[in-house]
Amino acid sequence: MSEVSLSVQAAIRELVLANRILDREGVVDALGHISIRHPEISDRYLLSCARSPGLVTEDDILEFDLESRPIDPRDRPLFAERFIHGSIYKARSDVNAVCHNHALQLIPFSVTGTPMKPIWVMGAALGNETRVWDVREAFPNDDGMLVVNDTMGASLASALGMSRVCLLTSHGAVVAEAGIRQTVLVSINLVTNAEILLQSSQLKLAQNRKETRYLTEAEIASMSKLIFNPRALDRMWEYWAARADNNPGAAS
Amino acid sequence: MSEVSLSVQAAIRELVLANRILDREGVVDALGHISIRHPEISDRYLLSCARSPGLVTEDDILEFDLESRPIDPRDRPLFAERFIHGSIYKARSDVNAVCHNHALQLIPFSVTGTPMKPIWVMGAALGNETRVWDVREAFPNDDGMLVVNDTMGASLASALGMSRVCLLTSHGAVVAEAGIRQTVLVSINLVTNAEILLQSSQLKLAQNRKETRYLTEAEIASMSKLIFNPRALDRMWEYWAARADNNPGAAS
Amino acid sequence: MSEVSLSVQAAIRELVLANRILDREGVVDALGHISIRHPEISDRYLLSCARSPGLVTEDDILEFDLESRPIDPRDRPLFAERFIHGSIYKARSDVNAVCHNHALQLIPFSVTGTPMKPIWVMGAALGNETRVWDVREAFPNDDGMLVVNDTMGASLASALGMSRVCLLTSHGAVVAEAGIRQTVLVSINLVTNAEILLQSSQLKLAQNRKETRYLTEAEIASMSKLIFNPRALDRMWEYWAARADNNPGAAS
Amino acid sequence: MSEVSLSVQAAIRELVLANRILDREGVVDALGHISIRHPEISDRYLLSCARSPGLVTEDDILEFDLESRPIDPRDRPLFAERFIHGSIYKARSDVNAVCHNHALQLIPFSVTGTPMKPIWVMGAALGNETRVWDVREAFPNDDGMLVVNDTMGASLASALGMSRVCLLTSHGAVVAEAGIRQTVLVSINLVTNAEILLQSSQLKLAQNRKETRYLTEAEIASMSKLIFNPRALDRMWEYWAARADNNPGAAS
Repeated sequence: MSEVSLSVQAAIRELVLANRILDREGVVDALGHISIRHPEISDRYLLSCARSPGLVTEDDILEFDLESRPIDPRDRPLFAERFIHGSIYKARSDVNAVCHNHALQLIPFSVTGTPMKPIWVMGAALGNETRVWDVREAFPNDDGMLVVNDTMGASLASALGMSRVCLLTSHGAVVAEAGIRQTVLVSINLVTNAEILLQSSQLKLAQNRKETRYLTEAEIASMSKLIFNPRALDRMWEYWAARADNNPGAAS
Repeated sequence: MSEVSLSVQAAIRELVLANRILDREGVVDALGHISIRHPEISDRYLLSCARSPGLVTEDDILEFDLESRPIDPRDRPLFAERFIHGSIYKARSDVNAVCHNHALQLIPFSVTGTPMKPIWVMGAALGNETRVWDVREAFPNDDGMLVVNDTMGASLASALGMSRVCLLTSHGAVVAEAGIRQTVLVSINLVTNAEILLQSSQLKLAQNRKETRYLTEAEIASMSKLIFNPRALDRMWEYWAARADNNPGAAS
Repeated sequence: MSEVSLSVQAAIRELVLANRILDREGVVDALGHISIRHPEISDRYLLSCARSPGLVTEDDILEFDLESRPIDPRDRPLFAERFIHGSIYKARSDVNAVCHNHALQLIPFSVTGTPMKPIWVMGAALGNETRVWDVREAFPNDDGMLVVNDTMGASLASALGMSRVCLLTSHGAVVAEAGIRQTVLVSINLVTNAEILLQSSQLKLAQNRKETRYLTEAEIASMSKLIFNPRALDRMWEYWAARADNNPGAAS
Repeated sequence: MSEVSLSVQAAIRELVLANRILDREGVVDALGHISIRHPEISDRYLLSCARSPGLVTEDDILEFDLESRPIDPRDRPLFAERFIHGSIYKARSDVNAVCHNHALQLIPFSVTGTPMKPIWVMGAALGNETRVWDVREAFPNDDGMLVVNDTMGASLASALGMSRVCLLTSHGAVVAEAGIRQTVLVSINLVTNAEILLQSSQLKLAQNRKETRYLTEAEIASMSKLIFNPRALDRMWEYWAARADNNPGAAS
């Protein structure tokens, strides 16, 4: 990749760091992936070869077209589910970064049909509506669960619609936002929102309280402006980057 | 800050360490902040520029008046919610350190309306009454959730009253005490108290027990004397400081 | 062990690494053990002397026959429960690695009689049926709980049948698979499956949802092909190995 | 302490290591303490000055008589609750090490009146009966909660009786055993037993199971022989010591 432009080099560096951050913050483990739209060619995207996010280096980043075919595969193994990325970039011109993960805290929501609603100020990052894609409903004649081709990717992208977050039943989630820092932020806050929501439900039951309070649409709109403010994003990114650089017990 | 007095230098050092401790102990993450009243000018306070607590250095500390205007902003970004600090120092001459955080364990209590009552010996640090400030009730015509001006700060300070702890519904908490070590102690114990209280509620329900036992006012008073004893505070502070100095995987 | 063949050397290295990985991923702690069938002599297996997995080195590996007698004990202490390994290798010619652990997340299932069913895509690694061995039922006249002889080992192997996983009531689990990477994978995913299943049950109850969705047999079959694919295994193994090499706060 | 005998030196070294282990394993935090009976003078015991266990060094160890008076206080601060140790050594000639801690997982049991029963093989370390000491019942005319004199210590020792474990309501636990390794083992397993028992109760409720299975007295007796076997203790101690030596993010 010695001939890439400065803007592509910067995108690759940011993407590698995003991989390390998602590993450090527990959003991904051995599995999961994050991509960024190519900064100069809008119908391409950058994604690592099939490797655990905590181990990804600049040399692992490959370029794909929106049918998720590698431009130059360099004999590297590819993620079977890379079609998630291509399909979402195709459907959403406003999206420039996509994350797919299996964070365990998310699974209880989709397998019980519990809506994932923003429950604290920073949960506003999830947006008004978290969608759900159920592979069984979408492909009733197929036992496969993973998004391994364009048809499945398009179905998932359609379920996501204009939302930021779509849960994949029994599987995990996809997050799509305008930039990579936003996508990382939403991915991290989604997991925390799930933790708080589970605990709140448990406390309500155990303490026999009448209701759990969620954010209103107006509150979500108001908080979103603050959360996605570039200076707020910079502050959080500086913190996550410092922790990722000093990741104990992670692959390095 | 080359011209500051020895007492101000000491306050700044203690404040930086408090930032690192709160990060290490999980009270704050990318967000949250702690301040200290100026040791020589009682209508001013010291607070870092807008930066994650685990990354704060002495150079990041700024001086504010009680309207939360920076004396010398040095082009640094400022916390939007610094008004929490100014408003509490204005209302509470007995308070010399204020912490605001979003610790996830606290949210379930405010969103379900569950009282945060001291449940174990060290929970006595919370004091007799944990207050709650609900931005929706305080400002029903405004969708903003954060404390971004003096009016909102005054409303929060009024809700806090003479207590040590006030939960902010769907948001987090503020803690205010006579010194920075006390404020750090209460902030840490508040999170642990929330964890124990949730688990106790769950165990009571699952085991069909009749009641959960909380501390009495007399027990809180008796334990408070021991907890806030300077020697006890020194012992805990020595421990937290050692851990903050050796913080794996935290920003440093 | 200076005279062992290259294939045995490789097996020993893989076994030592598997020990470190299981420690790093929290499947084992001071207790628990993993073995590998001898790569050249199919009625023998390799297992460390009685030592915590996180501390095991190549020099600790001993060779056993299928009655679990050490070929050359070198005065090392032996695991009292080594009969688990010999008995399973005897009963299952398809199995080449066996893990026994006490992961705390598994115990609630056996002591309440709750079936351990695969609940998310990676839970397919558990296979269609997790079996249960109850020492009280198997040996009603004996108060011993551990598998300390061939008779008890045979009883456990019989309960395991052709499954990959057998829970030991009030005790832990055994995992048996075709290779050591597969056995490590199933051991790790079993613990995560338990965590997700507990959380899902709690969320269903607290949110008053109608049902929890588990994987179907067809989904388990479909996912298993992908999970046990050598390239997928390599990717996960690379990640776990990197983390085990950089294990903070673990024995080393 | 330059003149102490070899056996006392060894006891001090073991005690310092036990302090570090209890910190590393999360049994103690800033607070909590462990002591050992003097190896040569049976009516004395060794305990650190008032310092967090994770920071204790050989120089911090002091000698006390069974009224918990320091033989040579060397101007060090003393634990207010040292009377726990003296009183138990006085009442129990079979006990040679005592630990007191506030592990948060233990509190839910005493505040809801839930019996702490051994629930998995290693929970047998707790013994047949975990006792409970309630300061409110023992001293109804006193609001103090801590064990700060011989009278309260004697009351607690009486509640402990011949058991290994006594929970202190709203406070924590004491553990007493024949040797320091045994006391550390029981202290660690007590916390894990509490975690498993809470999770088992929750799973039983959420899955609508009929009962939770505990160990029988015969099983406890049978497992205890294995758990307290010196070789088993050595194996666990080797592991904990290695982790304590390599304690990330702990004080050191």
